[in-house]
Amino acid sequence: MKYVLWHTNPDTDSYCAAVVAAWFLWELHENPEYASAIFLWPPNNETKYVFEKVWLDIPKPTTELPEWSEIVLVDHNEASQSIADRERYTIHMVIDHHKIADFATSWPVSMRCEPVACTCTILAEMMLENVIVPNRGIAELMIWAIMSDTLYRRSPTTTQRDKDAVARLNEIARIEDLEAYSNEMFAAKSDLWDISAKDIVTMDYKTFDFHGHTMGIWVMETTDPNYAFDRKEDLIDSIHDIKDEQWLDQLLFCVVDILNSHTTALVVSDKEEEIVSGAFGVIVEDGYADLWDRVSRKKTIAPPIDEWFKSN
Amino acid sequence: MKYVLWHTNPDTDSYCAAVVAAWFLWELHENPEYASAIFLWPPNNETKYVFEKVWLDIPKPTTELPEWSEIVLVDHNEASQSIADRERYTIHMVIDHHKIADFATSWPVSMRCEPVACTCTILAEMMLENVIVPNRGIAELMIWAIMSDTLYRRSPTTTQRDKDAVARLNEIARIEDLEAYSNEMFAAKSDLWDISAKDIVTMDYKTFDFHGHTMGIWVMETTDPNYAFDRKEDLIDSIHDIKDEQWLDQLLFCVVDILNSHTTALVVSDKEEEIVSGAFGVIVEDGYADLWDRVSRKKTIAPPIDEWFKSN
Repeated sequence: MKYVLWHTNPDTDSYCAAVVAAWFLWELHENPEYASAIFLWPPNNETKYVFEKVWLDIPKPTTELPEWSEIVLVDHNEASQSIADRERYTIHMVIDHHKIADFATSWPVSMRCEPVACTCTILAEMMLENVIVPNRGIAELMIWAIMSDTLYRRSPTTTQRDKDAVARLNEIARIEDLEAYSNEMFAAKSDLWDISAKDIVTMDYKTFDFHGHTMGIWVMETTDPNYAFDRKEDLIDSIHDIKDEQWLDQLLFCVVDILNSHTTALVVSDKEEEIVSGAFGVIVEDGYADLWDRVSRKKTIAPPIDEWFKSN
Repeated sequence: MKYVLWHTNPDTDSYCAAVVAAWFLWELHENPEYASAIFLWPPNNETKYVFEKVWLDIPKPTTELPEWSEIVLVDHNEASQSIADRERYTIHMVIDHHKIADFATSWPVSMRCEPVACTCTILAEMMLENVIVPNRGIAELMIWAIMSDTLYRRSPTTTQRDKDAVARLNEIARIEDLEAYSNEMFAAKSDLWDISAKDIVTMDYKTFDFHGHTMGIWVMETTDPNYAFDRKEDLIDSIHDIKDEQWLDQLLFCVVDILNSHTTALVVSDKEEEIVSGAFGVIVEDGYADLWDRVSRKKTIAPPIDEWFKSN
């Protein structure tokens, strides 16, 4: 049995990719005992919504894997984003769309990485290559994952391959109004009334090393930015706490309005203000910086900050 | 234009994989300007024989690649086995069957690694997946590469996938007597009359770090071990020189008789004798250790030595 693992702090693509990859490996090897998706970290509201929508159960929580189990990593390769003590397990396969970093093996493994927006796009291509036709539930999971990772194909990370995968998968899933369905999913993600300010801030975190400066660029994707703006003071307190706890030099919290492809950053100190003004040429007012259509941390937010640190 | 690169000290698989990968990328993108195999290190006698046999020219030598060129790495991923100053180029793709080590990127790349015996097996699978049918020359190149890396499918590294690839490719190449053809290729490799003892020793080198001990396990694959045994004294002198030059703690030179799947190691000092006796339970006589059917450095020679160093 191979265990398929999503990354820490998992998003919808990561969850769906693990369940889809396990299904694909069963089909490929004609053995339903071949692989199993493993629950290590709980789903967010969006992911819960997707699994309910397709009538699929979230995998059962696992306490611990047997030592030396064979593992399949989806949607990540870096050790820091993976199961703790990863060296106690045998990496069998990696399916991912991120840069390769902090990854090494002592034996040849199967690696399938592609520069597309979503891991499920790669899985859809692998099915096509192997002439494996997904059932309707699996096809839907992949569509939701791609819609989630590409913000309904609006994100600049979206490639033609992601769009083609959705078109092919929807010949099976036959979802009539993809936009309405996607917006319902995004609304589920935005439903944060029962979540603490601190949990909102840490919902989608990624920390960078910009030329010796440790800076968090943390993102909240929502259909209703007022969920964040109404709780501004709480969020600012949480950001200060987290900066201290995690020894971050800076922390930029970005509220991404999915429906309007628009980002607003919360700026909590003079240093962040200096960085944001310098990197994006914008004025900070009342603790907010308007980053306009920069909705991708990877493609449009982090690179200008990296450039700014390089020359300052 | 993407430049397809083989590894330093290239073998037949590496050479063929680069030429085949360039051809595959043309076909996939329907653009003969898409990719080109680049000559960085000269072929060995076996590889020259193969290219003559299929009436294909070895790519022309290249002096230097333009900085920031996009490169495709075949049959390797580690920086130490790659073009010098690799960070001056943009890695676009990796196709490989080795462990992943000393490899990282700042951006998502395409990686296709599989635990099979030969890079050309992966390329043959990629063609099948993409419904691209190789022409006869390309099919033959892949067959020779697989025969070379698997020692005519005798090596313990051989997988069912390698065998299946040869069977499929030979429906196109229609080589009647694969064994006779392979033996001719191995004989070309063994034709070493014009090669110095030092060049023979360094023909296929790989250096390991065994728990703090730097040890070379260098291999000569031949259809006629007497090519080596007749020049024993010269070879021993070269081994001593190389140990000094390269700061190796130990160096084991293994002569692999391809036709009889039999390995004999040249043992040049008391320390190597202690290691070989301990690791394999064999007696060293007259400077020779009989390693029997251990013909794979990766699978059957290095692991017992690693174990021996661990407990000594």
